[in-house]
Amino acid sequence: MTETNAPAVPDPIWDIAPLPPALDTPCLVIDLDRAEANARWMGAAAAERGVALRPHVKTHKSIALAQVQLDAGAAGITVGTLGEAEVFAADGIDDIFVAYPLWAEGSKADRLRSIHARTQLIVGVDSAPGADHLAAAVAGLSAPLRVLVEIDSGGHRTGVADPAAAVAVARRARDVGLEVIGVFTHGGHSYSAPGARVAAAADEVRLLGAAADALRADGFAVERISAGSTPTAVLAAAGLVNEIRPGTYLLGDRTQVALDAIPAEGVALVVAATVVSSSVAGQFVIDSGAKSLTKDRAPFLAGFGSIPGYPNAVIERLYDYHAAVTIPSGTPAPALGEVVAVVPNHVCPVVDLFDTFVATRAGAIVGRWPVDARGRSS
Amino acid sequence: MTETNAPAVPDPIWDIAPLPPALDTPCLVIDLDRAEANARWMGAAAAERGVALRPHVKTHKSIALAQVQLDAGAAGITVGTLGEAEVFAADGIDDIFVAYPLWAEGSKADRLRSIHARTQLIVGVDSAPGADHLAAAVAGLSAPLRVLVEIDSGGHRTGVADPAAAVAVARRARDVGLEVIGVFTHGGHSYSAPGARVAAAADEVRLLGAAADALRADGFAVERISAGSTPTAVLAAAGLVNEIRPGTYLLGDRTQVALDAIPAEGVALVVAATVVSSSVAGQFVIDSGAKSLTKDRAPFLAGFGSIPGYPNAVIERLYDYHAAVTIPSGTPAPALGEVVAVVPNHVCPVVDLFDTFVATRAGAIVGRWPVDARGRSS
Repeated sequence: MTETNAPAVPDPIWDIAPLPPALDTPCLVIDLDRAEANARWMGAAAAERGVALRPHVKTHKSIALAQVQLDAGAAGITVGTLGEAEVFAADGIDDIFVAYPLWAEGSKADRLRSIHARTQLIVGVDSAPGADHLAAAVAGLSAPLRVLVEIDSGGHRTGVADPAAAVAVARRARDVGLEVIGVFTHGGHSYSAPGARVAAAADEVRLLGAAADALRADGFAVERISAGSTPTAVLAAAGLVNEIRPGTYLLGDRTQVALDAIPAEGVALVVAATVVSSSVAGQFVIDSGAKSLTKDRAPFLAGFGSIPGYPNAVIERLYDYHAAVTIPSGTPAPALGEVVAVVPNHVCPVVDLFDTFVATRAGAIVGRWPVDARGRSS
Repeated sequence: MTETNAPAVPDPIWDIAPLPPALDTPCLVIDLDRAEANARWMGAAAAERGVALRPHVKTHKSIALAQVQLDAGAAGITVGTLGEAEVFAADGIDDIFVAYPLWAEGSKADRLRSIHARTQLIVGVDSAPGADHLAAAVAGLSAPLRVLVEIDSGGHRTGVADPAAAVAVARRARDVGLEVIGVFTHGGHSYSAPGARVAAAADEVRLLGAAADALRADGFAVERISAGSTPTAVLAAAGLVNEIRPGTYLLGDRTQVALDAIPAEGVALVVAATVVSSSVAGQFVIDSGAKSLTKDRAPFLAGFGSIPGYPNAVIERLYDYHAAVTIPSGTPAPALGEVVAVVPNHVCPVVDLFDTFVATRAGAIVGRWPVDARGRSS
């Protein structure tokens, strides 16, 4: 329980397209024009800096949106689970990096073997036992499994702590028959507070560099040095880093805006919700609860999302299917039955709650698209 | 941002069946023997008190588990959304209460009309405009739509504030052609802290009684007085209350145990997770992140779940697919690749993240059952 009570970062003036009429709420609404613009922006930023862009598709879990990213110059995709890899590979997107220290045993080993046999798979590794299991899973296949050694650049989640440990894991991986092609990191400490991303990106570059130098000194051909998160991607795309892996930038969310990682105009997804009750004084209730917004809330955000149409409203309490929204007296409140847009705090787990999203352009519905990899968490 | 820093409630000594071998993690594991025992316990508690039991199936979203509850004496089911009602009705479970102030407009009105035409539906209402829309949705059908007026018993989420408001909503409902059969409440303030459930249950009984009296004085035949949540259900099942609607009791979770609403032995569901990394000192990482455990955490709980096998471990930080678990030095930690059971903080949103669960008896797998109404949040 290390809850900090940081002051809340004020919301910006949002710039959200009007919601289409007649939505069955709660539902996801994605502004395709804006998502495409975001894809082009990051594609151009990577190209200008001469680095490869390999977006993390856990954000949207959509084959169609992955294609938007590939069309805007992405070199391949990043996933977090074998389940995601299976879904995208089935549609022919087969240059896939599993940025995760996969533990390949039992059915996971079988699945890894199967997908490696039919795609260009790369997998993360941060331990010698992890490498042993990866190698055993693909034993006997003609193509060696390529791996990147994960480096802890300050997020203290996964990844080896120092260059010596990186060399030890890389040697073991090589010894058991894996092909070590480089190093990767995720500077997750970029999410700790507004402003943290600058130092976090510098940490990524510095620690990836140190690990890459150590591996090269030990005889490894380090062809890939991969950094990234949406807050750090553009900042880290310099010098020795030759690949970035942002994900959230495509759809945007309230946390990214608060972190100054994207502009307010970068938000391409909202949850549409209906006002279903106003019987308690000083609040209204909308039908997007924890099963559509999630209880994700960074310590520097007030409430569980932002309602652009009612900037003084705070989504104070979430239940499974209700959100209680407080609003100061004297402030305009929505009417019963009104449909409001909510900018979610964190888009990735929100998307994972829906089977489909409403695809729009300029506020008009152009389709209902599947969240192809929804629920593929294993 | 009204985060309280209440001291954490210590976890009990858990009593969890051994996990079956060879699970593909993360996954839900449900102990059927225990769920059935929970169903019998609540069924007996309701029967002894002479009240009807109408369990809220949003907890498990499983037709098979709803059948377990019906077999143990439940009189019907409660749902939170039309989507849930549709799923259960399609399987022939058609005595359904939508305990929600449904706003019936557009496709929701069409869906309500359709399901009312083929089931024994009852719907919640807490406003005159809400009643108007419900009535319009079912206009012309032969059977009137039955409604219960929702009362705010102290949770301050939805429901009318006082008996006069209950009468006003009931009159409007009657005037527009709905059949008002009673009142209901959800004493959600029972979740605020350990011990709160006793006063919350008393509030439910008192305020339901006052509203029922006012309705009767106004000429309404109040046949149903419905209370409940798992923390208050048994306490409120006395005197005038003639129906209770607990949900979580069937599977149990860490919050309910901390609230003293169920015993530690009542937990029938765990999330199985694999240790995938131990590269950061003082912690290990498991593969159940926010997309399998959710960030639900009551202020009186430390961490995002409890690991019975490692009682000193704290699930400190959640990412989409990783959980970073801190463990004091000198304490036994699990090995890489070990599969651990996690008791989730709040079972309802966790179940909603999975398409299936592993059904077990005495630690052996007996099937892989669907979460039939997963994602039916609208």
